[in-house]
Amino acid sequence: MSARLSTAEDYQKLLDSYDTWLFDCDGVLWRGDSLIDGVIEVLAMLRRLNKKVVFVTNNATKSRKSYKTKFDQLGVEAHVDEIYGSAYAAAVYLSSVINLPKTKKVYVIGQGGLEEELRDEGLTFIGGTDPADNTLEPFSLSDFTLDPDVAAVVCGLDTQINYTKLSKAFQYLTRNPGCHFIATNEDSTYPSAHGLLPGAGSISAPLRYALGKDPICTGKPASTMLDCVKAKVHFDPERTIMVGDRLNTDILFGKNGGLATLLVLTGITSEDEITGSNASPIIPEFVTPELGDFRIVQSNS
Amino acid sequence: MSARLSTAEDYQKLLDSYDTWLFDCDGVLWRGDSLIDGVIEVLAMLRRLNKKVVFVTNNATKSRKSYKTKFDQLGVEAHVDEIYGSAYAAAVYLSSVINLPKTKKVYVIGQGGLEEELRDEGLTFIGGTDPADNTLEPFSLSDFTLDPDVAAVVCGLDTQINYTKLSKAFQYLTRNPGCHFIATNEDSTYPSAHGLLPGAGSISAPLRYALGKDPICTGKPASTMLDCVKAKVHFDPERTIMVGDRLNTDILFGKNGGLATLLVLTGITSEDEITGSNASPIIPEFVTPELGDFRIVQSNS
Repeated sequence: MSARLSTAEDYQKLLDSYDTWLFDCDGVLWRGDSLIDGVIEVLAMLRRLNKKVVFVTNNATKSRKSYKTKFDQLGVEAHVDEIYGSAYAAAVYLSSVINLPKTKKVYVIGQGGLEEELRDEGLTFIGGTDPADNTLEPFSLSDFTLDPDVAAVVCGLDTQINYTKLSKAFQYLTRNPGCHFIATNEDSTYPSAHGLLPGAGSISAPLRYALGKDPICTGKPASTMLDCVKAKVHFDPERTIMVGDRLNTDILFGKNGGLATLLVLTGITSEDEITGSNASPIIPEFVTPELGDFRIVQSNS
Repeated sequence: MSARLSTAEDYQKLLDSYDTWLFDCDGVLWRGDSLIDGVIEVLAMLRRLNKKVVFVTNNATKSRKSYKTKFDQLGVEAHVDEIYGSAYAAAVYLSSVINLPKTKKVYVIGQGGLEEELRDEGLTFIGGTDPADNTLEPFSLSDFTLDPDVAAVVCGLDTQINYTKLSKAFQYLTRNPGCHFIATNEDSTYPSAHGLLPGAGSISAPLRYALGKDPICTGKPASTMLDCVKAKVHFDPERTIMVGDRLNTDILFGKNGGLATLLVLTGITSEDEITGSNASPIIPEFVTPELGDFRIVQSNS
């Protein structure tokens, strides 16, 4: 069962116990384009207490650099090297885990942010935002030339998804021997400003179905994302806490990495999903209505 | 184990045992645009023997009427009322099984053939080939008005698949209470003239993934398709045989319906998939290299 934080002492104890704080963003810091109440004050408090602050997002349409502008627009302090996105994790996985040779190429189903991260890791790619592949014109294999250098297909959220991209990716994955199949993340839905839309996991679903095979996933809850953080930030897992709003991504991610976990109720999960007989098997250690609740410590001190 | 037909007596025995012959088309009668050797003669022989001939296809992009032109082009005798497609099965399922009220609408992910079958069954639909939904322009829920009359989403092969269609279908399936989720068929791939491409099952996969729920499927191997045939054609299952090239659609469809099954090796399945220790659990009763093999009877008589 999760411990429900309520008194100033509860919150103070968490602040004393954890030096590194990992945050999911959407549903924790903001909802769409609206900042959640108290977030700026609580993050500022953590920084004053010399806590390490890390932002871990499955958003694969933005590079870390462009994701930072979201923080800037909402007035939340953040630095590019504190931000870890699933597009970045996919790029690091290709360049540093698989060690994709520089002569090889990546076929991209995804948007500019994913391309930017691949480029920053020195990877060569085709597809993605190339106008030739962003079309609803009929696709025929008779007009298609297989590029033998494509050794990986990376799939993120792509709102320009179409049959040409799916068909080309399918050719590479079935005809280029050993071609890697990577998904930035498996989120089934994406919380747009006006409601839920199909997420990155839904964009890779046609390939998964056609191939009868799951991709390697680099976003939460996969440990690939934590490996990326670990490669850059020194932290003690026993004194680290993951704060998120989704059980099957954020909270599972924290648990997979041996971290403490705190669920906030400002996003996708409601409290009844972690209590009672129908509770999820993924239960956070701690739960609080919203991140801003930590302000109780400040007002008491 | 399957009986491998080889002598004239083997083929004659099948002709004597079965009065109704159900055929898959692609991979049995033709491959892409090439007629398979001996098909015309064998179908003509069956007709001379007063056998009932029925064509059962998962092709959901063509109506039965336009599918008949494929037979005509290749010089194969066929009549519209002998042709059963998964688009027709979906339309019949909506009009006669669910009994969708005439005031309700269907949201279509699919092509003109599916629309034609829906129209012929007196159903009202939106989406489909509507230019407004065949776009790669960004989709925003703020510009979208939910039509409360949409009570079903039908998904077939759609090479114009895009994020607008997926997002609208997702809204209907999550926000209109009781909205039916129907897929014409679940074929993972589609055999185009120049090779395999993602099939209808891959087009509905994003919705299946986003919803965490499988659609009702009206194509082979689902019994819905056989129910459609049964409603129009009188046949004795014990004297009926299904001829096909795919184990998990055609052969399973025959078995699900209590029919005899004959696998031909001119399509997707090779003989080693039904023999040895790694054989499929779906084994046809009979197997022959190609449909034209039945000509041995004719040449002997």
